[in-house]
Amino acid sequence: MDRQELIEQLAVPTESKIVMIVMDGLGGAIHPQKNSTELEASVHPNLDALAKISACGVQDPVGSGITPGSGPGHLGLFGYDPIRYLIGRGLLDTVGIDVDLTPLDLTARGNFATLDLSKGLLTDRRAGRISTDENKRLCKKLSGIKIDGIEIIIHTVKEHRASIIFRGDGLSDSLTDADPQKEGLPPIPTHTVKPEASRSAKIVNQFLEECRVRLKDEAKANCLLLRGFSKMVDLPPFSRIYKLNPAAIAIYPMYRGLSRLVGMNVLKVKEDNLAGEFETLKENWNQFDFFFLHFKATDSAGEDGNFDKKVQAIEEMDRHIEKLRALDPDVIVISGDHSTPCAFSGHSWHPVPTLIYSKKAHYRGPERFTEYQCAKDGFLGRISSCEIMPLAMANAGKLLKYGA
Amino acid sequence: MDRQELIEQLAVPTESKIVMIVMDGLGGAIHPQKNSTELEASVHPNLDALAKISACGVQDPVGSGITPGSGPGHLGLFGYDPIRYLIGRGLLDTVGIDVDLTPLDLTARGNFATLDLSKGLLTDRRAGRISTDENKRLCKKLSGIKIDGIEIIIHTVKEHRASIIFRGDGLSDSLTDADPQKEGLPPIPTHTVKPEASRSAKIVNQFLEECRVRLKDEAKANCLLLRGFSKMVDLPPFSRIYKLNPAAIAIYPMYRGLSRLVGMNVLKVKEDNLAGEFETLKENWNQFDFFFLHFKATDSAGEDGNFDKKVQAIEEMDRHIEKLRALDPDVIVISGDHSTPCAFSGHSWHPVPTLIYSKKAHYRGPERFTEYQCAKDGFLGRISSCEIMPLAMANAGKLLKYGA
Repeated sequence: MDRQELIEQLAVPTESKIVMIVMDGLGGAIHPQKNSTELEASVHPNLDALAKISACGVQDPVGSGITPGSGPGHLGLFGYDPIRYLIGRGLLDTVGIDVDLTPLDLTARGNFATLDLSKGLLTDRRAGRISTDENKRLCKKLSGIKIDGIEIIIHTVKEHRASIIFRGDGLSDSLTDADPQKEGLPPIPTHTVKPEASRSAKIVNQFLEECRVRLKDEAKANCLLLRGFSKMVDLPPFSRIYKLNPAAIAIYPMYRGLSRLVGMNVLKVKEDNLAGEFETLKENWNQFDFFFLHFKATDSAGEDGNFDKKVQAIEEMDRHIEKLRALDPDVIVISGDHSTPCAFSGHSWHPVPTLIYSKKAHYRGPERFTEYQCAKDGFLGRISSCEIMPLAMANAGKLLKYGA
Repeated sequence: MDRQELIEQLAVPTESKIVMIVMDGLGGAIHPQKNSTELEASVHPNLDALAKISACGVQDPVGSGITPGSGPGHLGLFGYDPIRYLIGRGLLDTVGIDVDLTPLDLTARGNFATLDLSKGLLTDRRAGRISTDENKRLCKKLSGIKIDGIEIIIHTVKEHRASIIFRGDGLSDSLTDADPQKEGLPPIPTHTVKPEASRSAKIVNQFLEECRVRLKDEAKANCLLLRGFSKMVDLPPFSRIYKLNPAAIAIYPMYRGLSRLVGMNVLKVKEDNLAGEFETLKENWNQFDFFFLHFKATDSAGEDGNFDKKVQAIEEMDRHIEKLRALDPDVIVISGDHSTPCAFSGHSWHPVPTLIYSKKAHYRGPERFTEYQCAKDGFLGRISSCEIMPLAMANAGKLLKYGA
């Protein structure tokens, strides 16, 4: 019996409510110019006050030294072993656009791109960031393609991005990206080293050729690039494991998609900003007993290497903590799916500061909610991301005793 | 190879001696009225002095968020994976009364109860806490029952409690409790959803009917309730794994039983109190090289939600630490099988403060032996219960080097 199965055996439904705030890319690192981390440099009195009475620590999303993508980062927070369950980018994008998937589906992330037909080289991997409406027109142009019994469904995501579903028996996702990842290079076909995926590769490449034929007269978007091939995964439902009625509040498609994959109810967000997310939380407070609220700005600033902007993002979240506490949740979790230090301009392996507040029994936490104070002065010490849900459940009084 | 198999390969017998003091339910939590934990509120200079030179930390008995029963809590301390090995309540009770069990045995915990025969409802699940002598008389009345080739053996535990052994081939413990757990309800038969247990269910229910016939003229104890059906488990012996000659000093049957299950020599305790346990330790000092000493009062006070009493229990243990050190053990472990915070009046999932003293090499420990000082200022950090025995063995010089 693994940890998740044990938790499933012990979980019971109760009246208590859990809120999990995921500040994407929350963890930082000491910036060489600023000589501090983003959390150390920011003024966030409400987060500090919460940390001071919470069980704090740092969590490894996947494991020591592993830099996680958003998929593994979130799966760990939701209590799913991110090494056992891997979700491809294509799949995440696809479930993010409210599409029902079948277990047969092979999904991929698509980019409309500009190809210099005379030279055969890519000049713009994003086709000049065409409008979403333009994208919809192109998707219509590419609809209805069927190859070797496989139905191919294409959906607009946003701007130049599309999601592709190959639907039919016997498909495999052991395929390389059909995307050179750089401009100035020719588009490339997908390939595979696994015999069981060779038919899938052939179908994908035939589809790409058909796309080029249908798009040849387009000025900007005359080529489609595909990456992140991924089959549907079979995740045990969150509601079955934890006996929770869970809701997800997220603006970005990927996080909405991930929530849908584990069976959360993805709420319509009132307005596409943090205030709108907290409004949505408040309005739906009585309908659910678990809320996942996703905040993207910390990660975006980190990816841009914009230290001040990440500091501001942290401070923006801080201003909403009072609203959260006014709802009087039984348990509040605040963590991130991974670290995104501005010093790295990208995701990193650094463990993520984490806070678990329990209404029933307070803890002695650190003075401030920062990476180092959580690591050195928190009651949790260093934990694995998969321990967060069991701890949240225990603090909410939702786990029975194990054994006599 | 799992951790325990590795330890077994590396363990060697030596002259050194280990004492493991288990303060049942040791860990506490911040009490909302007292604004401190039980360990923080108590005066225990001897434990503090020991902590200051010991490797300290907190340990998760089973895992993050899991509230353990006494069985899993102790198995972890003894180095057995408590998820792999689960010991039912019936089995623990049974081995606690010095009964030799066979691998065939199905055990259960019994309660003599009072049934209102006219209404068919339970009026007292404990039959007015009849005396132990009265219990013995009733067990004699129920002796000699045999159903479908299965011999049924009933032993007095204490007051209204008895232990039942179903002995014979093909029994299963996939049975629900034959106990409604509440007064004002009728007694219920056991049932099962597993076909391989249906014969066992039939035998148990026939036995219960026969009991009612034999007990029908009793004023108080006219009904028997059964719960915690459990088969014998196959635990690798403690002495084989660690090459130790282990002794157990415990007053309560359950802990004596658990020690016997792993093959410890269960000593006769001189007097049923902590002083008597330490006397027993001293008298047997030369005969064994591992001593498990169990102290119940911390848990009992915690279960009662009696903060001051738990503080007193901690202080009582503290007064015996000098006697312990006078014996000059090579390694002293002090921990608990789980936490029992008075704020919860019951077991909890909170990790348990732990101290490993080594005569050979001192450590820098915290100033005080408390939950937070162990968690934040200890050399061990946060560990799993199963790491304690390997650490004790290492500190006692009983583990060979692994690999060349």
